[in-house]
Amino acid sequence: MSGRTRNATTTGRPDGSARRSEAASLDASQPLHGMRIIELSSYVASPLSGMTLAQLGADVIRVEPLGGAQDRTRWPRARSGTSLLWSGMNKGKRAVEVDLASKRGRDLVADLIVGGGPRGGIVISNSERYPDLTYEVLRIRRPDLVHVQLTGRRDGATAVDYTVQATTGFAWLTGAQDSTQPVNNVLPAWDVAAGLYLTAGLLAAERHRLLTGEGQQVRIALEDVAIAIAGSLGYLAEAQLTTPRRRDGNHLYGTFGRDFGTADGERLMIVVLTLRHWRDLLAATGLTGAVSALGTALGVDFDDDDERYRHRAVLGGLLAEWFGRHTFAEAEAALSPARVLWSRYRTFADLVADGAGTLRSNPLLRELDQPGVGTHLAPGSPVVMDGRQSPPKASPQVGQHTEEVLRAELGLSEAEVRELRGLGVIRR
Amino acid sequence: MSGRTRNATTTGRPDGSARRSEAASLDASQPLHGMRIIELSSYVASPLSGMTLAQLGADVIRVEPLGGAQDRTRWPRARSGTSLLWSGMNKGKRAVEVDLASKRGRDLVADLIVGGGPRGGIVISNSERYPDLTYEVLRIRRPDLVHVQLTGRRDGATAVDYTVQATTGFAWLTGAQDSTQPVNNVLPAWDVAAGLYLTAGLLAAERHRLLTGEGQQVRIALEDVAIAIAGSLGYLAEAQLTTPRRRDGNHLYGTFGRDFGTADGERLMIVVLTLRHWRDLLAATGLTGAVSALGTALGVDFDDDDERYRHRAVLGGLLAEWFGRHTFAEAEAALSPARVLWSRYRTFADLVADGAGTLRSNPLLRELDQPGVGTHLAPGSPVVMDGRQSPPKASPQVGQHTEEVLRAELGLSEAEVRELRGLGVIRR
Repeated sequence: MSGRTRNATTTGRPDGSARRSEAASLDASQPLHGMRIIELSSYVASPLSGMTLAQLGADVIRVEPLGGAQDRTRWPRARSGTSLLWSGMNKGKRAVEVDLASKRGRDLVADLIVGGGPRGGIVISNSERYPDLTYEVLRIRRPDLVHVQLTGRRDGATAVDYTVQATTGFAWLTGAQDSTQPVNNVLPAWDVAAGLYLTAGLLAAERHRLLTGEGQQVRIALEDVAIAIAGSLGYLAEAQLTTPRRRDGNHLYGTFGRDFGTADGERLMIVVLTLRHWRDLLAATGLTGAVSALGTALGVDFDDDDERYRHRAVLGGLLAEWFGRHTFAEAEAALSPARVLWSRYRTFADLVADGAGTLRSNPLLRELDQPGVGTHLAPGSPVVMDGRQSPPKASPQVGQHTEEVLRAELGLSEAEVRELRGLGVIRR
Repeated sequence: MSGRTRNATTTGRPDGSARRSEAASLDASQPLHGMRIIELSSYVASPLSGMTLAQLGADVIRVEPLGGAQDRTRWPRARSGTSLLWSGMNKGKRAVEVDLASKRGRDLVADLIVGGGPRGGIVISNSERYPDLTYEVLRIRRPDLVHVQLTGRRDGATAVDYTVQATTGFAWLTGAQDSTQPVNNVLPAWDVAAGLYLTAGLLAAERHRLLTGEGQQVRIALEDVAIAIAGSLGYLAEAQLTTPRRRDGNHLYGTFGRDFGTADGERLMIVVLTLRHWRDLLAATGLTGAVSALGTALGVDFDDDDERYRHRAVLGGLLAEWFGRHTFAEAEAALSPARVLWSRYRTFADLVADGAGTLRSNPLLRELDQPGVGTHLAPGSPVVMDGRQSPPKASPQVGQHTEEVLRAELGLSEAEVRELRGLGVIRR
């Protein structure tokens, strides 16, 4: 437990620079400096939202039940048993642990939520389990509360990324053409999208409060995020109005793009978005003449994007033969000078091979000494503001800042903290 | 072209309700009412950002080169040829079409970007092609400019979702255990995440401007978004510090979850996050005794989450037999009363079957009459504010509001517009 104290009426940053005026904020990467957010969350979506806000400068306090939230031991884990997911999702937050099963514990959390000064009064939650922490109850104490709630389904029912994946159609479109089963997306993309929608909703509501003094409730359902994105990408309209598309392996839909294997067992993804990409790809592979002859023979103009897609099997076959006869190094030498969009497929092991050289060249990643995990390359914020970027900060341990927060944010005395400890409301 | 006119000094909403005071905003779902954003974009990430802001109440003007941006004909398409992607990603925006190859055209766009009153001066762009539309150049005219730039890679190099997918490891973890090739994610999840990060970065920068008067440049690279998310989920640390994980089909990593087929050919996804889920699943399938006996025989406590994951093959096998002997209706009847997280795998065709009954029950979706597409169920915003939600609005046609915007936002006269038309700077 750090010995630093904070005045309950200020809304300084975790680094202790309280009372610095908003206008004098020195680091452009921290525009949310001064904002204070209580996060009651677990797993991916709501923790990602809190972390994104913390990376932009907000003071984010993650509150968990005694012993930590359900995700405290979630895989992947370091050899020590420390959750790499929990550590990864809580970078730069403070952590408080209270007995949420007790009225006294929930009262403390309610006090935290409604406190924090003019830039406080903000909560992100993924649980509706506690009737005394709802918007309806808390806004009585703080009418300008910004209350951001994630649910699984709109009606409040539970759903998680993998059940939403099953519900929303993509699993039947992913994977090899001849596969007969749905293929789950290993990336919890709906959780990620929901976490970022929560962030946008929170910032929009807090902006409204800045301009009008009015608080707001923001509710987002994980399933709605998936349906909204599927709809905006055209999948729902396509299925309603035309023929739903079929599984198509690693092909891009509607344009020429697919993966190819090289003679030495590497794989590449090639994406052709423009006529220039196409002509350069043919020139790089020496196939300009062959494709031209084929087009003439078939009566097809392969300069047309749609035609390249319709004839992707034959065009892909020609290119596959070329890549199959060349090593990765040869393919790279041919493609690199050309204006062709391509990438080598990498595993996570490839990314960290040779001292993680690939990652080390990107200033997004920095060495981070994370207690319980060890020193490793960790990402900061992908948002670069005025050329500055928030580097990765260590995540706390579960409950690391409980007493500090109770004293500094709620103004509790040492005797009051001792009493809470004695009652088991906070960890003994 | 609508005949309504707008005063160049107001920042009203596209519905014409200019000059309404911010405090008197009637619709809680429109907290960004009054904000004006110019969007120079194509494909998915930056258009999604603009649309998200438009759904929250901002006046978003999409600017495209003559004939429309590269994505104007992107698949999927309606039978008329209208792009369902373009229509889906531009709902509720206004659309302007100018000759970006001409200095005169770019000057008009620069005028639009630096205009818009105190809540204007905001641009989202996914192109660095135009040197006269960069942050450095435009901030000279408007020092409080908020300039939001998406790039492919951090160094400005081009990358798209599918090449970033190849770069970042997930393709080798997705798909059946025995597959030998990478599996692309059909959902452009990195584009979606990048679009929402752009939105959060823009709102954070505009908030900073509200509080300090200072503008800011926000830069986000698509590749950085993918690396940051992979890192925060623990994949990079796992690969650096332990053994990178292996492909595991439709299994969840580190907890019990996988898909099962029913006797009548349906598939379900089951996710067990808690002991209660597990016990309910066993009770629902009548396997409590069998699993208990198996645990005793193997000396394993299946009440432990980790052990359920380690022994997922045998436990999955037992459950697969049960599901294989029961129809979907029987499985549903058994699972529905239990506290088990599960979902049936659906195709997009399933989602729109029977008059799209499944979608119709969700107030997220409403009938939308989209010119060139027809009437269909389309999603509004997944962000619900104070119980209110932005319904889907029709997308414009490419360039639909060019003259309206030039007159109302730049105050051009009819003669000036005619001159631009004559010069071919706007469509004749």
